Amino acid sequence: MIYILTSLRFDVSIPDSFLYDVSTEIDKTMKIFQLSRALSIFRVNNVYIYHDKLLNANKNDLQFMVTILEYLDTPQYLRRKLYPKLEILKNVGKLHPIRSHHHKDRLEIREVKTGEIRVGVVEKRRDAYFVDVGLSIPIQYDGKFRHDGRKVNVKLLRHKNYISAIDIEKNEITELYWGYNLHQIRDLKNIIDKFPISNIILTSKHSKYFKPSENEFSKLNSFLGNNSILVVFGSPKFGLNSILSKEKMNISKYYSYNFFPNQGTQTVRLEESIYGVLSILNICLLFP
Amino acid sequence: MIYILTSLRFDVSIPDSFLYDVSTEIDKTMKIFQLSRALSIFRVNNVYIYHDKLLNANKNDLQFMVTILEYLDTPQYLRRKLYPKLEILKNVGKLHPIRSHHHKDRLEIREVKTGEIRVGVVEKRRDAYFVDVGLSIPIQYDGKFRHDGRKVNVKLLRHKNYISAIDIEKNEITELYWGYNLHQIRDLKNIIDKFPISNIILTSKHSKYFKPSENEFSKLNSFLGNNSILVVFGSPKFGLNSILSKEKMNISKYYSYNFFPNQGTQTVRLEESIYGVLSILNICLLFP
Repeated sequence: MIYILTSLRFDVSIPDSFLYDVSTEIDKTMKIFQLSRALSIFRVNNVYIYHDKLLNANKNDLQFMVTILEYLDTPQYLRRKLYPKLEILKNVGKLHPIRSHHHKDRLEIREVKTGEIRVGVVEKRRDAYFVDVGLSIPIQYDGKFRHDGRKVNVKLLRHKNYISAIDIEKNEITELYWGYNLHQIRDLKNIIDKFPISNIILTSKHSKYFKPSENEFSKLNSFLGNNSILVVFGSPKFGLNSILSKEKMNISKYYSYNFFPNQGTQTVRLEESIYGVLSILNICLLFP
Repeated sequence: MIYILTSLRFDVSIPDSFLYDVSTEIDKTMKIFQLSRALSIFRVNNVYIYHDKLLNANKNDLQFMVTILEYLDTPQYLRRKLYPKLEILKNVGKLHPIRSHHHKDRLEIREVKTGEIRVGVVEKRRDAYFVDVGLSIPIQYDGKFRHDGRKVNVKLLRHKNYISAIDIEKNEITELYWGYNLHQIRDLKNIIDKFPISNIILTSKHSKYFKPSENEFSKLNSFLGNNSILVVFGSPKFGLNSILSKEKMNISKYYSYNFFPNQGTQTVRLEESIYGVLSILNICLLFP
């Protein structure tokens, strides 16, 4: 059981036209916030933002989305330092917190225990490197990413008279979730080709309904192993069938489903679709 | 198949403290919008807003929520007439449309076919009653709800020289969904007692995980018949276990589940929970 629980990992691929159907900065910020919440609640590790060749979205929108997504994934104690008064962030102050597991509270020096893992940012002071991990003072950094302003995951070590921080290996993180990584890619094909077909789930209004109890689905699930499931979404305007055919790919080669049988509205918005599909897959893949 | 598809109907019960954790009017409006979208996408018929005795929410918040929910369920062509310049609606203009099946477009007189069913509002002119159904002129109303301003569902009849409207029976609506009805109730107990236990699903972080493939669940499902499933939610602050125990009810008597296994964030917000739970139940109850 525990094995199944912890080995289910999601990656998500969304178009750079994500913001196509919203115009004001407040609306865009809200839509990105809903996305960030969905990614965080369902433990999405990698977000592949593919270039949507049908809509050719505004590059500023992409920058806006990436910046706010990264901001929201950053622990509160580092936000002001990493994002000093950025104009596009003027509406994020009003957002509710994400509260992922790596968004830890500020800590007193005396509370630090050896082995505590935290997100920090590297700072050069004279010739020495320190890391800000949300303590009242910067901590001596003994890791290898010696670039001022670099975001790192570190493990704290308590010595007699001081505390130091070293780099961690990825598998040292034992929390259920440690935030998402963003990747911008030119062709959706590139990322789809990197996953075994059995680990890819496409979402499309024009595909058959997803049925948790179906054989096909347990086959899909049996391939899970220790790999991630890549869940791919279309744009606010065009479905994946159109987007894939523009990339000269055939949607029928893949597992593709409609997750909203009998929808009571004419459309399900992209941010709603991402949230709903991940809700369903999280339950159905954890408890097949 | 068709039988199963059309006979799955949801009712939802939420607390009058729904807006407890948001303070600005924009935030409140956004949260209600998300709720209205979830209710509409998943074809919720009845929304029972119960009084949460633990939080004792502000009465203005309840009025705010009810008004905006009703506004959003109203077809566009009637909104300005039914809600003339209401102060609390000042932010709804920015919201995306709901686009339920009963939110029909305006229609030209020549396009009207006998049998077309539309939402209208009754208007008295001198001694005759008319109904505004989004045509360029009011239509002669031959139904029995003769109160100025009353919202009605009517069927249009095309005669030689004019069009008239008559009341419909509820089972004449063949669309998949025709909007939600709001009900305010004092005690959660009252509404729970009106449903057979097999048609009630409680949601609680402290309950066991919902597992689509489990026996218990198919038992639940077999009772569905032609009745609605009542899905009950706790408040932004307290879970259903606390709320029910205040009502001297025992949560263990009911089917109660946690729908968010391994959540990557410390909390799932109420509007997110409603959306996610209905996504899951819609798929799992349609395709058991």
